[in-house]
Amino acid sequence: MKRTLDLAVIGGDGIGPEVTAEALKALRAAVGDDVALTETAYALGAEHYLATGEILSDDTLAALARHDAILFGAVGGDPRDPRLAGGIIERGLLLKLRFAFDHYVNLRPTLLAPGIASPLRDPGAVDFVVVREGTEGPYVGNGGRFRQGTPHEVATEVSINTAYGVERVVRFAFAQAAARRQKLTLVHKTNVLVHAGALWQSTVDRVAPEFASVAVDYLHVDAATIFLATDPSRFDVIVTDNLFGDILTDLAAAIGGGIGLAASGNLNPDGAFPSMVEPVHGSAPDIAGQQKADPTAAILSVAILLEQQGLPDAAARVRTAVLADLAERGQSPRRTSEVGDAIVARLR
Amino acid sequence: MKRTLDLAVIGGDGIGPEVTAEALKALRAAVGDDVALTETAYALGAEHYLATGEILSDDTLAALARHDAILFGAVGGDPRDPRLAGGIIERGLLLKLRFAFDHYVNLRPTLLAPGIASPLRDPGAVDFVVVREGTEGPYVGNGGRFRQGTPHEVATEVSINTAYGVERVVRFAFAQAAARRQKLTLVHKTNVLVHAGALWQSTVDRVAPEFASVAVDYLHVDAATIFLATDPSRFDVIVTDNLFGDILTDLAAAIGGGIGLAASGNLNPDGAFPSMVEPVHGSAPDIAGQQKADPTAAILSVAILLEQQGLPDAAARVRTAVLADLAERGQSPRRTSEVGDAIVARLR
Ligand SMILES: CC(C)[C@H](C(=O)O)[C@@H](O)C(=O)O
Ligand SMILES: CC(C)[C@H](C(=O)O)[C@@H](O)C(=O)O
Repeated sequence: MKRTLDLAVIGGDGIGPEVTAEALKALRAAVGDDVALTETAYALGAEHYLATGEILSDDTLAALARHDAILFGAVGGDPRDPRLAGGIIERGLLLKLRFAFDHYVNLRPTLLAPGIASPLRDPGAVDFVVVREGTEGPYVGNGGRFRQGTPHEVATEVSINTAYGVERVVRFAFAQAAARRQKLTLVHKTNVLVHAGALWQSTVDRVAPEFASVAVDYLHVDAATIFLATDPSRFDVIVTDNLFGDILTDLAAAIGGGIGLAASGNLNPDGAFPSMVEPVHGSAPDIAGQQKADPTAAILSVAILLEQQGLPDAAARVRTAVLADLAERGQSPRRTSEVGDAIVARLR
Repeated sequence: MKRTLDLAVIGGDGIGPEVTAEALKALRAAVGDDVALTETAYALGAEHYLATGEILSDDTLAALARHDAILFGAVGGDPRDPRLAGGIIERGLLLKLRFAFDHYVNLRPTLLAPGIASPLRDPGAVDFVVVREGTEGPYVGNGGRFRQGTPHEVATEVSINTAYGVERVVRFAFAQAAARRQKLTLVHKTNVLVHAGALWQSTVDRVAPEFASVAVDYLHVDAATIFLATDPSRFDVIVTDNLFGDILTDLAAAIGGGIGLAASGNLNPDGAFPSMVEPVHGSAPDIAGQQKADPTAAILSVAILLEQQGLPDAAARVRTAVLADLAERGQSPRRTSEVGDAIVARLR
């Protein structure tokens, strides 16, 4: 029987739908006739919210849960629109999906591809993966405002970290390192965030003997940014918490040639819920609808999806096609669809 | 009557004493006969702790409080020494001083000096200041480990932010921007850390009209790292919380030519407690005692101290001497004392 892949597609806002259209073209070309692909589009995002009042209903969430995987574009409207203040779309949609579908691995590779200019003068061979925890840490939304709006206000944010949550992502990161260059760097701030830091450090120490081939290293998050800027080739796999991972992967994307190239996977490796891939970039409302966005990050996210779906050959084909395209792309800007077409042509 | 300056000196561990010695030479040369300088050395740090069991006693703290200012080198021993685990020196000494002496402004300038190579290919004119909050946020030590060491452990970190604490550092940052290029960028993560983020954003919004000439901008911390790596010349003054400030200033230091050049001031602008200046770098035990460390960051920290002590001319002399030294320094490495001597010679 033919392999099936039942995909939910959330194009979202701004450049999201444009880059997602190209990602879908690449996905179709990569799987060809080997896979019976079903695509179901979901209208979600800031625009949908402003038009309908829905951010993400229980029904929609339940419908999404029935798919094999989710292809996500980008969400977010005009940042100055008061109706969208406080990140309600980001939290009510993107983070809600990550939490509801237990995407405890947020996988973010950085590869400085041949032909791509890094902002660094001498980046060396940059090829590392950040394994960012996706369901805990300062992202849990815990905290509050006390005496709000008064001179005596106290606002708190609580980072919640569990042995359960840390261990599973640490194990995933060790396995990644074992399949790559055998090096794992824990990034945290154990000298200041001593409670969470001790949980992370002790978890890494406890799991390490099970992966004897993997060399383990530790860096404070501040020092990690220095090494990313001065010696990024030292990294193989970085494992870190939700917030540090957020910060480091934007920096990593910049170093790897820009967020136009940075792919990510919100993974539920257990398979209990659909995983979701998305480019690291946002919805960029300022260039939306103009075919100016680079769909490469969205297309590379498809490779993560295929890998996660047990289709490593198709994933490899996508990566190879993207690398070839990057190596040969000239200086003149191409339209979003032109980039997609060029990559699809290589996939045929 | 002659102006007096009663200084406490904490050389600390590793390269701390070496760079502090050069900083003191520069300080003496910069004030010359205009100021009656008293120096009192305090033996503190990891080595002192291992030898005596004292990290920072109440008596020592009270003695330090009686000085006009503190010149701090660096503290921290062998990171693998279990007796120093969990950042007890960093927290018990450095952070304790920042909190006890209400150093609510952690001032960290980045200037890419002529003649200095940045790791960035095309950094542009880099000249900005990070005003990092120094007494609140995730640094308060609040949180804990529940069911510690079990598979059911929960570890928390609580970021505490007060209207009082945020407003005073925001006002300081606005004043800095008003005295510089009239641009203030708030960096936070308001779309995720909504409670603390709203306090920071609303405080900036409320204070802004008092500084009508200052243009106010906002960046999420992840995006801020991208701009630091790709367009650092866009920044003038950044104001941010304790943890984000920690992360961004290490990255800023890297971009500005390395932490060997990055100065900082832990300031209590109200003057209720002594301010304390320190190089951003750590104690670097691996190169300690070898006269290999660059004392420039420590010497530039002296300029912050002089400024803060109402001696702007002496501060300017130090900066000018350092810039001249950086512009003319050759490729061959100089000993720590040679750098100090060269700068002192320019101050004479
Ligand atoms: C949009 C925002 C909530 C999100 C995050 O902070 O995780 C984004 O920055 C990312 O990295 O995917
Ligand atoms: C040593 C450490 C506690 C300190 C901090 O986190 O503030 C250091 O990194 C710094 O930036 O001064």
